[in-house]
Amino acid sequence: MSLQQRYAAGDAPAAILHHPVIDALLQHRSIRRFDSARPLPEGLVETLVAAAQSAATSSNLQSWSVIAVTDPDRRARLAALAGGQGFVAEAPLFLVWVADLSRNRALGAAQGRALAGLDYLESFMVAAIDAALAAQNAAIAAEALGLGTCYIGALRNHPEPVAQAVNLPPGAMGLFGMAIGWPVPGPHSAVKPRLPQSVVLHHETYRAGPVDAAAVARYDAAMEEFSRRVGQGSQPWLPRMLARLADAAALSGRDRMRAALTALGFGLK
Amino acid sequence: MSLQQRYAAGDAPAAILHHPVIDALLQHRSIRRFDSARPLPEGLVETLVAAAQSAATSSNLQSWSVIAVTDPDRRARLAALAGGQGFVAEAPLFLVWVADLSRNRALGAAQGRALAGLDYLESFMVAAIDAALAAQNAAIAAEALGLGTCYIGALRNHPEPVAQAVNLPPGAMGLFGMAIGWPVPGPHSAVKPRLPQSVVLHHETYRAGPVDAAAVARYDAAMEEFSRRVGQGSQPWLPRMLARLADAAALSGRDRMRAALTALGFGLK
Repeated sequence: MSLQQRYAAGDAPAAILHHPVIDALLQHRSIRRFDSARPLPEGLVETLVAAAQSAATSSNLQSWSVIAVTDPDRRARLAALAGGQGFVAEAPLFLVWVADLSRNRALGAAQGRALAGLDYLESFMVAAIDAALAAQNAAIAAEALGLGTCYIGALRNHPEPVAQAVNLPPGAMGLFGMAIGWPVPGPHSAVKPRLPQSVVLHHETYRAGPVDAAAVARYDAAMEEFSRRVGQGSQPWLPRMLARLADAAALSGRDRMRAALTALGFGLK
Repeated sequence: MSLQQRYAAGDAPAAILHHPVIDALLQHRSIRRFDSARPLPEGLVETLVAAAQSAATSSNLQSWSVIAVTDPDRRARLAALAGGQGFVAEAPLFLVWVADLSRNRALGAAQGRALAGLDYLESFMVAAIDAALAAQNAAIAAEALGLGTCYIGALRNHPEPVAQAVNLPPGAMGLFGMAIGWPVPGPHSAVKPRLPQSVVLHHETYRAGPVDAAAVARYDAAMEEFSRRVGQGSQPWLPRMLARLADAAALSGRDRMRAALTALGFGLK
């Protein structure tokens, strides 16, 4: 059923392979209302980190860290830095996923090695990709336990104050946050449709030519229906996407990401 | 049991929360030997893409694509570009995960909108992170079905030739590959240990001070034991990590990532 909700009518693949793990993946939805009074289970953070560390990591460099924030004041501070999204502060656990070259750097320094390879954009990409793979495993683990999660990309609106709030060393940056808690059920927590597979999946080579306008139109209709159902008006996808990427101002401060990363000690050569 | 294999002796968390999905995550291992004669199930690619699309995506921008490569000649070409790792060509399916701003760009152009927001490093980061989240879901789905996977970061050794091999438009780049096939079982496919949680997990703020040398030493010993067991000699982690990041030459061509991305049409402002 979640497969039918994931795509516009007629756009779901005719048949997919089923497995309880796959069914769990298909049921993902971001949660933005948490039961802040209900405590989280003992051992949760260690469980999520074990899942996260089980993800692949480039050349086993393990260039990521995670900070488990439960202190209400610090959660409120991070929520404010992340665009003031109130629900972030409601989640009893906020994970800051860190693209972290500082540990590699420190281990090198302890051996008298400068590790000039860290100064390149590629090394930042390795750290960011590995942090993302790890975080996704943690999200899946949390959802399997019935918890709700929401990625908070707005943590990148203010990279230096975020680094200060959680005391990051040079060469580390908060890539995104993750709010975790028991979900408050309701129509707002529905499976969000995605673009048809015909738009994102290519066979052998990238399909040349314009994006299939009819497929996007079907998706826009599905997103209108979805946003009505979850009480967010009636919003097609395309105009929102265009607005979100319109210009530097639309990036909510993230247009200075390069300067921020440089200030945080990344070479980005 | 996979939890005990994931950490050096004494470093596994005392107790974690169990669930079949979490146990599946903990069992991950990269597979580098495939049964190239055994066909993949019908509907596999559509299943993996449905799982991938179910991952979170920043502001629902969906700035990624995936190319399913099965043609033996193209797989061999990509394997050669990815450092000549023979096992890549043995896998019957090779997925190229694409950080893709070209679709957003094209949809904007069709509306007469330039989308200057795409020209910033932040937008490339969004595309790369979203592609990574999606790919990790696909990897988990494949493993759930009993298939083996291996991320191929070496696809970034030669970004422009890779783009050419799969006909990428400007604003799209092959972020990493993923080899998929039926695994050939054996001691080489074992759960690889990771650093102790005490090194990667921080509470409230990032732990100040030097990296715990004793924890790293325990990990080095675990990695020596692991590499002996899988027939790769007896290699501790630290010297390999230091060598991999020593200098520009150690990056296998990826020290020119910024120039490559610029050539492929990313603004990276």
